[in-house]
Amino acid sequence: MKTYGVIMAGGGGTRFWPLSTKAEPKQFLNLSGKDILVNETIDRQSAFIDREDIFIVTNQTQAELMLARTDGRVRRDHVLAEPAARNTAACIGYAAMEITRKYGDGVMCIFAADHHIRDEQEYTRVMREAVRTVEETDALVTIGIHPTFPSTGYGYIKNSPIEGKRYRKVEEFVEKPDPDTAQSYVEAGCYAWNSGMFVWKASTILGYFERLLPDIYACLTEIGNAMGTAGEREVIQRVYPTIPKISVDYGIMERAKGILMLEGDFGWSDVGSWDTLDTVRKKDENGNIVSGDTLLMDAKNCVIYGKNKLIAAVGVEDLVVVEGDNAVLVCPQKDAQRVKQVVEQLEKSRKDRFL
Amino acid sequence: MKTYGVIMAGGGGTRFWPLSTKAEPKQFLNLSGKDILVNETIDRQSAFIDREDIFIVTNQTQAELMLARTDGRVRRDHVLAEPAARNTAACIGYAAMEITRKYGDGVMCIFAADHHIRDEQEYTRVMREAVRTVEETDALVTIGIHPTFPSTGYGYIKNSPIEGKRYRKVEEFVEKPDPDTAQSYVEAGCYAWNSGMFVWKASTILGYFERLLPDIYACLTEIGNAMGTAGEREVIQRVYPTIPKISVDYGIMERAKGILMLEGDFGWSDVGSWDTLDTVRKKDENGNIVSGDTLLMDAKNCVIYGKNKLIAAVGVEDLVVVEGDNAVLVCPQKDAQRVKQVVEQLEKSRKDRFL
Repeated sequence: MKTYGVIMAGGGGTRFWPLSTKAEPKQFLNLSGKDILVNETIDRQSAFIDREDIFIVTNQTQAELMLARTDGRVRRDHVLAEPAARNTAACIGYAAMEITRKYGDGVMCIFAADHHIRDEQEYTRVMREAVRTVEETDALVTIGIHPTFPSTGYGYIKNSPIEGKRYRKVEEFVEKPDPDTAQSYVEAGCYAWNSGMFVWKASTILGYFERLLPDIYACLTEIGNAMGTAGEREVIQRVYPTIPKISVDYGIMERAKGILMLEGDFGWSDVGSWDTLDTVRKKDENGNIVSGDTLLMDAKNCVIYGKNKLIAAVGVEDLVVVEGDNAVLVCPQKDAQRVKQVVEQLEKSRKDRFL
Repeated sequence: MKTYGVIMAGGGGTRFWPLSTKAEPKQFLNLSGKDILVNETIDRQSAFIDREDIFIVTNQTQAELMLARTDGRVRRDHVLAEPAARNTAACIGYAAMEITRKYGDGVMCIFAADHHIRDEQEYTRVMREAVRTVEETDALVTIGIHPTFPSTGYGYIKNSPIEGKRYRKVEEFVEKPDPDTAQSYVEAGCYAWNSGMFVWKASTILGYFERLLPDIYACLTEIGNAMGTAGEREVIQRVYPTIPKISVDYGIMERAKGILMLEGDFGWSDVGSWDTLDTVRKKDENGNIVSGDTLLMDAKNCVIYGKNKLIAAVGVEDLVVVEGDNAVLVCPQKDAQRVKQVVEQLEKSRKDRFL
């Protein structure tokens, strides 16, 4: 059975505001200095999936931009454009239906467009193992990340070994913990970070939709029946926005039995905010991460991103300074998560021109 | 005898970089939020000098911009354009010669274009007194500023009272002191800040040029002889750049005898750097001074100047954040003086496009 890549690129993410904006979300940022995140994701999957077999699910307003930015990496008919964001269950169901109707069936490797992997070789090895596991077992397989510190920013997967197997049994998905609980998880040794990477057959996951999320399944079927017909666009425009909004984690993973997990230890990061940038980019000798035209004098442990203008940083420490097209952000690294509040406040005060 | 205002606006000042640039120096900045510094200076002098009688000495590259920005405040033939910056003696000598040739003689009130006065009424009173003193005595008169704190950033004028007079006798001009010396000056009560404000007759100062700076006087005479003739521009272009570079303080004030001083206590400030901005602008309830589009969250005692973009400052204290057309500066208030180093480094590394 053929293996397909499914890259979820629906995010309008503003956690890297003011560099990321609604028009230019995180997946289009070149945070590593090498390429934009979505292209790094495609190229990483190309190590074990033919480029011809990679899909991207994005929203309609971004579809053309996606084709332009990915520069021929992905087939035009493999860019699936959602008319509305309906969370990850809808997104994955849409891709599964597309693969089923177009190619009969296939193993789907699902990955976010805007995450980062340090050790791509190990990543490829684990993903190949996951595909083999799906082919052997027909199970839902998820990739749990070996936790390198007691993160309170991720959900965890409690898991247990299965004798004689390289894959493990998922016992339970647990929410983002408080610091003490996170510490106990790491010490226990049987908890992995929930990275949102999944591998399964299109037919298998559609079976779960049918049993666990029948309302969504009905929508997907209506859309599937129209695929390849003249009415396809019209049906998608009409039906997709009515799909119940639910994540695949809540809708399926936390309710399905017999989910398997492969543990990955390959330097995964969701690159969630400016203060996590050291996962994708090396610091200089003073601990700074810089991009664009900068002039630093006695600056230490700063993230300095210039875009159109020179950024001069003098005598500052642990600071994030980012220039976007419409705004400049200055905050201590420890407050990097508060970018969300800034964006909310701009939305509330109708200053959308800065978003 | 008529009184003339002479505003020295030759500065290419970059102490307010990146808002001030070579093309847009400090005198053209609206730091107070009311008007640009040079217009505030003109309007302040208009209280005791007819606008028709105000001169501005600036450099040739800025002359047209000066006429545009001052918006009809100053007569075109009263904007004196230096072909090269030759320090304050040349600048004042040029203005004195112009007044002499055009109007015979006059009392000159000399003021920098980019300083600030809080109490304009008191300033007017002191300046009128200074003009009266010049008319009575024919002396060189300088305005010493009552020191409100032991500044190490200004030179001082040691002075003593003269019985029965409102003006005082200048004993000595002294250099910028170290902190202990500054403290002793303030305690002594007979030292005033040297603000660089002067009042004297054009004929009197030209007499001092003739005796103390004969080389400069020869240049000024050659220029003066050409004034009003067809060859004026040619002579200025040729002669002015050869005038020895010396300040009026070194060249005349420190060597002349019998200089008189009037003490001013009217909230004078040379607004020398970003951390002195509170002299021209009120802080908000969190101690911030802001301009342009800003979004502040838990920001305290900051100076935040946006120009084209929104500046979002989150969780920062005692910081200066300034956006200019070509650059953004971020530094603690205590390092505001280091802007000079930034500008020097940009010049050295030939990154003039950011200046």
